Amino acid sequence: MRVINFNAGPAALPLPVLERTRDELLDFRGTGMSILEMSHRGADFESVLGDAVVRLRRLLQLPGTHEVLFMQGGASLQFALVPLNFLPAGAGADYVVTGAWGEKALKEAQAVGRARAALNCKQDGAFRRVPGPGELQLDPAAAYVHLTSNETIDGVQFHDFPPAGGVPAVCDMSSDFLWRPVDLSPFSLVYAGAQKNVGPSGLVVVVARKEFLARGRKDLPAILRYGTHAEAGSLYNTPNTFGIYLVRHVLEWLEGEGGLSAMEARNRAKAAAVYGAVDGSGGFYRCPVETASRSVMNPVFRTPSEALDAAFVQGAKAAGMVGLKGHRAVGGIRASLYNAVSLEDARALAGFMEAFARQHG
Amino acid sequence: MRVINFNAGPAALPLPVLERTRDELLDFRGTGMSILEMSHRGADFESVLGDAVVRLRRLLQLPGTHEVLFMQGGASLQFALVPLNFLPAGAGADYVVTGAWGEKALKEAQAVGRARAALNCKQDGAFRRVPGPGELQLDPAAAYVHLTSNETIDGVQFHDFPPAGGVPAVCDMSSDFLWRPVDLSPFSLVYAGAQKNVGPSGLVVVVARKEFLARGRKDLPAILRYGTHAEAGSLYNTPNTFGIYLVRHVLEWLEGEGGLSAMEARNRAKAAAVYGAVDGSGGFYRCPVETASRSVMNPVFRTPSEALDAAFVQGAKAAGMVGLKGHRAVGGIRASLYNAVSLEDARALAGFMEAFARQHG
Repeated sequence: MRVINFNAGPAALPLPVLERTRDELLDFRGTGMSILEMSHRGADFESVLGDAVVRLRRLLQLPGTHEVLFMQGGASLQFALVPLNFLPAGAGADYVVTGAWGEKALKEAQAVGRARAALNCKQDGAFRRVPGPGELQLDPAAAYVHLTSNETIDGVQFHDFPPAGGVPAVCDMSSDFLWRPVDLSPFSLVYAGAQKNVGPSGLVVVVARKEFLARGRKDLPAILRYGTHAEAGSLYNTPNTFGIYLVRHVLEWLEGEGGLSAMEARNRAKAAAVYGAVDGSGGFYRCPVETASRSVMNPVFRTPSEALDAAFVQGAKAAGMVGLKGHRAVGGIRASLYNAVSLEDARALAGFMEAFARQHG
Repeated sequence: MRVINFNAGPAALPLPVLERTRDELLDFRGTGMSILEMSHRGADFESVLGDAVVRLRRLLQLPGTHEVLFMQGGASLQFALVPLNFLPAGAGADYVVTGAWGEKALKEAQAVGRARAALNCKQDGAFRRVPGPGELQLDPAAAYVHLTSNETIDGVQFHDFPPAGGVPAVCDMSSDFLWRPVDLSPFSLVYAGAQKNVGPSGLVVVVARKEFLARGRKDLPAILRYGTHAEAGSLYNTPNTFGIYLVRHVLEWLEGEGGLSAMEARNRAKAAAVYGAVDGSGGFYRCPVETASRSVMNPVFRTPSEALDAAFVQGAKAAGMVGLKGHRAVGGIRASLYNAVSLEDARALAGFMEAFARQHG
C-alpha cells in the first residue's frame, strides 16, 4: 500500500514513473541491460539525455538564448559555483534573502567574494514574506542578484519576480521548478535540485543564458566552470545517468498531464485546499507567512501547541499521510505539495486537518 | 535476455542487486514509498546509509583513523577538491601520472596551485606502465602525492603501491576500488567514482584519514570542504540517496560472495582468461601495456588492424557481448572486468577471442 507522501525532498514521484522505471530496470528498451549499467557516451543514454532536454525546453518554451544543463552536487554546490564563476574580484553580488536557503546561498558567496544581503526579510528570527514591489534597492553595478523563488523551510514564495533593473538575475528554483508556466528568459541563471519537483536527489537542473555562461571565470578547475558543462552538453564527466533518466520520465508525465498550465491549476487547487483548512479552522491552525507570500509548494502551519503539532504528525501518519513534520530548524507542520502530489492527496490532508481541529479545538 | 556487459562505467551491476532494487522500487521495506521518495533525514534512509558505511568498513577492515564519506560530482570533482582543500599557497603537490585520468587530475590541480608531475609515464604518446620501485623521486615537502591506482583508458594498474616516503598519499581508485583486499590505512585520502566497481554514477566514495581532513583549508565555501561532509556524516546536503542505497546492496552482495579475497581470486581468474587469450593468440592480439603493469580490471588489446578491431566489437555484440570498444582517445578493444562481471562472462569473451583469431588470423 502506497502512503500519501508530503515529504519536502526527496519527495513523492508520479506512480506511473516509478512503475515504468521498475518494469524496465533490468532491461532498458531491449538493450539487455539496465539504464544503470549503460555508458553515458552510448547512443541509448544520449537519446535519453537529449529527450530530457527537448521535453524540458518544450515545457518551458525556452528560447534558444538559454542552455539546459544537468549537473551534480545539489543546489548547495550551486551556492558556491555561482559566485566562483560570476563574482569577480572587486565586484559585488546582491542577495535577496527570504528564507533559510537564501541565507545559506549568501554565506557561501561570502566565502568567495563580496556579497551582501540587498534585503533580508528575517524579522524576529523568522521569515514571513517576500519583498513588495519597489522595496528592493539593488546595486546597479552588482555582478548579479540572487533570489530564492520558494523557501521550502519557511513556506515563503515569490509569486511575481521583482525587476532586477538590468542586473543579471540568478534564481534558486529548487522547490518550485516547473510548478507553473514561467518565462525563464529574463533570468541569467536558474538552478533547481531535482529531488523536489522533478526527480531524484543527486541531480541539479540548470537553465542559463548562453551569453552569461560565456562570461564566467576561466581560471577555475574545469569541473567548476559552467562553461565546461555547457560545451560538453552535460557530458564533461559521467553525469547522474539514472537521475537524468528519471527526470525524462517525469517530464513526459508532466506533458501527459497537460503541461505546466494544468500543473498550475492543480497546484493552486491543492494549496487552496490546505490553506482553506488553515483559514477555516477558526484560528486552530495558524500559518506564520503573510498571505500574499504563502508558498503554493510548501504550506507551513501550526496548531495551538508543539504537543498538538506532534500529535497531528503522528495522527496523520496513522491515517496514511507521511512527511508532515516541519523542518527541524523551525518546527511546526509542513505539507509539501509538489507536482506528484495529487489534488485528492491534498484534499485528504485538508479533511484530516478539519477532523483533527474538531477533535482538539 | 541480459547481455554480457563489459562497459567501462557506468558498468555491469550484480543481477541480484538489480532484482532486489526492482522488487522494492515502489515500496521500500513496507514504508509505502520508494527509496527515491524518502527524506535523507528520515530513519529509513539513515539506516541504509549507516549500513552502507558499516559494510564498507568491514569489507575494507578499515581502522577508526579513517572516515567513509559519500559525495557527489564524480572523481572529476575530486580532482579539484583535493588541491582546493590540501594544496595551500606556497606548497607543492606531486602527481604520479600513469594514464589519462592522472593527467586530468594534475591539470585540475594546476588550476588551483603548484602541482607537478613527479613522474609522467607517457612515452611516444601512450601510457604502458607504472613506475618501478625506486623510480619515483618525490618531494619530501610536497603537500601530498597523488596516484591513480588503475587507469581505465590505458589499462595500466598499480599492483603494489610505491612508498610515499612520509608524504600524504592521495589515490584515485575509481576503477579498482574493492577489487581485492587492500589496506587503505597508509593513504590519507582515497576516492572512487561508484559507477565502475560499486554502484551507479553520480556518487563518489571517499575514504580518508580524519587527521588529514582536519588539516584542510577552512576558507572555502562549506560545500567544497571535506571537513563539512565528514562532520555531517555525508548528510550536509541531500546526497544521492538512490546511489547510496544501491551501493549498500552491492556491498551486501560482495559480502555474500565471500568478500574481497573471493573477489580477488575471481578477478584474477577473469583477467587471466582474457590475457591468456591475448598471449595465446600467436601475436594476433597485442596488449600495449607492459606485463607487470597490466590492469586486472580493464584489459586493453588490439587486433592486427583497426578494421579488425571494429569487426571484433561488432561480432562480439552479435554474440551478446557489449561495451568492448576501446576509449575514443586510444581506440582498440577494452574489456572491463569489474566485480559484477562473472568468470563465465570473461571465459565467454576469451572463447570469442580465440574463435575470432582463428577466423581472421
